[in-house]
Parts: sequence; C-alpha cells; structure tokens
Amino acid sequence: MNLEKKSLLYDGKSKTLFEIENSDLAIQLFKDDATAFNAQKKGKILNKGKINNGVSSLLFTYLKSKGVPSHFIEKVSEIEMLVQKLTIIPVEVVVRNRAAGSLCKRLGIERGKTLQPPLVEYFLKNDELGDPLISEGHIEYFNWALPSDLMFMKNTALRVNEELKKVFQDLQIDLVDFKLEFGKNSKNELLLADEITLDGCRLWDFKTGESLDKDQFRLDLGRVDEVYEEIYQKLQTYFKGKL
Amino acid sequence: MNLEKKSLLYDGKSKTLFEIENSDLAIQLFKDDATAFNAQKKGKILNKGKINNGVSSLLFTYLKSKGVPSHFIEKVSEIEMLVQKLTIIPVEVVVRNRAAGSLCKRLGIERGKTLQPPLVEYFLKNDELGDPLISEGHIEYFNWALPSDLMFMKNTALRVNEELKKVFQDLQIDLVDFKLEFGKNSKNELLLADEITLDGCRLWDFKTGESLDKDQFRLDLGRVDEVYEEIYQKLQTYFKGKL
Repeated sequence: MNLEKKSLLYDGKSKTLFEIENSDLAIQLFKDDATAFNAQKKGKILNKGKINNGVSSLLFTYLKSKGVPSHFIEKVSEIEMLVQKLTIIPVEVVVRNRAAGSLCKRLGIERGKTLQPPLVEYFLKNDELGDPLISEGHIEYFNWALPSDLMFMKNTALRVNEELKKVFQDLQIDLVDFKLEFGKNSKNELLLADEITLDGCRLWDFKTGESLDKDQFRLDLGRVDEVYEEIYQKLQTYFKGKL
Repeated sequence: MNLEKKSLLYDGKSKTLFEIENSDLAIQLFKDDATAFNAQKKGKILNKGKINNGVSSLLFTYLKSKGVPSHFIEKVSEIEMLVQKLTIIPVEVVVRNRAAGSLCKRLGIERGKTLQPPLVEYFLKNDELGDPLISEGHIEYFNWALPSDLMFMKNTALRVNEELKKVFQDLQIDLVDFKLEFGKNSKNELLLADEITLDGCRLWDFKTGESLDKDQFRLDLGRVDEVYEEIYQKLQTYFKGKL
C-alpha cells in the first residue's frame, strides 16, 4: 500500500481527510486551525495539529485496549493518523458528567451541576444548521441512524466515558463532557470515528476549576497554547509504557 | 358546589385558572390577549376568549365521545369552562403532519413537507427558557414525566391527531400541527389538559393554503379576527347535533 497515492476526501475546519487509493483506508490530517461558535470565531492554536493527533492517537489506542474499537489504525506522522474509511453517521453523541456550555442556557441548569448518571444528548452533524439538538425520536424518524446503531452509539459513549473519566481522574482532572462521532466501515461495522481531543472535551482542573480545553479558546481565557501542550504532556507521561 | 367560591390558581398569558374551594375542580377562563414569540409580541384578538372557550369545549367534547378523556367537564359561561384540577406535566407534546414553524428552520426542512407518519416532538413548558426542545431522554433523565406517562401522552396525541385531522379534512382544512398538554388529577389519572384552540394549532386552507390560525397574528397576515371567527363558526356548524 502506497500512502503517497492519496486524494482529498474531505476538507474540514480542523482536519483534512485523504483517501488512499485502492484501499478502505484514509489519512486523517490535523490542522492548527481552531474555530468556535459554528466557525464564527476563527484562530490558530500553537501545535494544535500535532497535539490533537497525539492526544487522539493515545486515547484511541487506550480505548482499543479496553475493548472499544475505533477507526484509528496508527499514527503515521506528527500530524497524521491512518484510519479506516468510514461512512459517518450524522449524529454527534455528547456525554455530560457535569452541566456546562449550551446545556446550562438551554435548560436553565447551573454550571458545574453533577449529572449522575451521565446525561447523553444528540446533535445533528450539520454546520449549516449549527449542529442542532435532536432527540432519539428525530434520529429514528429521519433515519439518521438505525435504532440498534443508536443504542450501540449510546452504550459505547457511556463506556468511553467510564474509561476516560478514570484516566483524567488520575491526572486530577474532571471530565465534564465530550463529543463522539461514529461511522460504518466497508464491512458495515459501526466504529468510533473522528477524534477525541481537547477540541471536543471539557476538562476542569480538580483544584482550581480552570478549563483545560477549547473553552480557553472559545472564551479567551488566556492560556490556550499552554493548556493544550500541558494536557498532551500529561497524557504522554501517563500512558508511557502502558499502551 | 358553589362556583362563586373561587380563588386564583394561576394567571397565564391567555388564560386564568381559578380553584373552586373544597373541590377537585377549577374554572378555566379564556382571555382576549394574544402573545407570540415567547411573549415578545403582544396584542388582542377580537372575541378570542369566547372563541377559544367555544372551540376547546367543542373539541374536548368531541374527543371524549371518541374515547379520549380530558380535564374538560362543561362550558359554564361564554369565556369559562369547568375543568378537573390537574397537576400539569411540564412537557408540551407537538404533533406535526407537515413541516412548519420552528421545525423548518431548526432542521432545514422545507415548509409544507408532508410528515407521514406524523412527527412527535417535545418541548419543556418553561416560559423563562422559551419552551426549549427536549428529547425523550431529557424527559426521563430529569423526571419531567414517567416513561409510561410519556408513552401514554405520545399515543394519546397521535389518537387526537387522527380524530382532529378527520374533522378538519371535512372542513377542507389541513391540520398541519398542534400542541397538547397533559396533567394528573387527584386520582392520579393522566388526562389531556389545557386547551385545543387556534392558538396552538396550525390549520391551512386546502385550496388557498391560507393560515387559519395564530400565524395570522404571529406573522401579521391581516385576517386574524376574521379567521378566528370563521373557524369557530365552521366548527359550530360541523358539530351541530353531533355531540
């Protein structure tokens, strides 16, 4: 297989996907570009491409070792990973252990309120519509996912939550919420897709409550570059010799 | 029972509810006030109190004859009905036979698109939050309704839809969508509550497509007073001798 023989599949806000000719594989390339509020806010985060590729590679590898497979195959360069080519299901699954972000405003829930058991929400993956909240009923009605696939996605998201919560707990960090995507490969297997990075998680420092995630960028909290680098370093140290 | 001995239970945007002392009953009084867009737009519709009381009384009576009980007992004056006192479930059930209103913008669906089977959506009854869309999962998670009650509400809403669609079809009117509320009486029976009026339905003329409902008020379509009166007249004629 020649990784050089690739053609553009998809150019997104923070990643580019290249198809590898005559294969079921793709290269997922992480950019330094950062966007927020449905791309109304734009910028760059230092080494974000490298960091997001690194963090995602570590977490996907860890999750695989815990029995949660994903599209991830291996890291092939500083900013690229080899992945299975998937047909993405247009439903974002969000798991929330504490209330934060849109949930607080939408349902009037106090920021930081513990959600135990975790709350699972679904959003339609549609930039034009601003990724609107959707219900299980909408997903079934509009055939965005099969009911059995949705159940698998929800259960997988909750398993991922349990595993990642433990990791971040060991690092004295609260996993507040995160977003997952899923897709089907050529064998029709439903797999965890996309990325797991600081772009799609909320992480709060146990002691200080500081946001250690993309809220640094969204809300101009002042330590965005440092926070991305620090979390990557901590995860590298944490997983060293374990994976 | 003395209907005069009443005390204010609730004063809403379009209705006032009075508790009748030493009873499980209440008086629901319909006002002429009209509001839209979460009360950002305010006004009055000619004889709205009388018309909404009349339309609701007719439709609740008709639905009861079809085996769908509600809190409605009887019309006691031009603008008042006697109802069972309920504890309202804070979930609005919306049934949609065609795409209109918020659905079109939210999910990018063309106005007028047929939704067959009907789409059921849920909204949190909370003025402060602007009645946000919620999912079945939210309702269960936050205990806004028991799963069995939610199923009853959904099934009842779909039955109401079938019955009302037939009525309006006979009047050459398309029942596009409508909102229902539910509540529990002192015996813990779950009943259809609130009202069924032009305020909470979308009705389109079969031939002209004209909005024969509160969209006349929301969108300043110019015939709001006439439309309310016309639909009330048509329903009175339709049900004459039938109920």
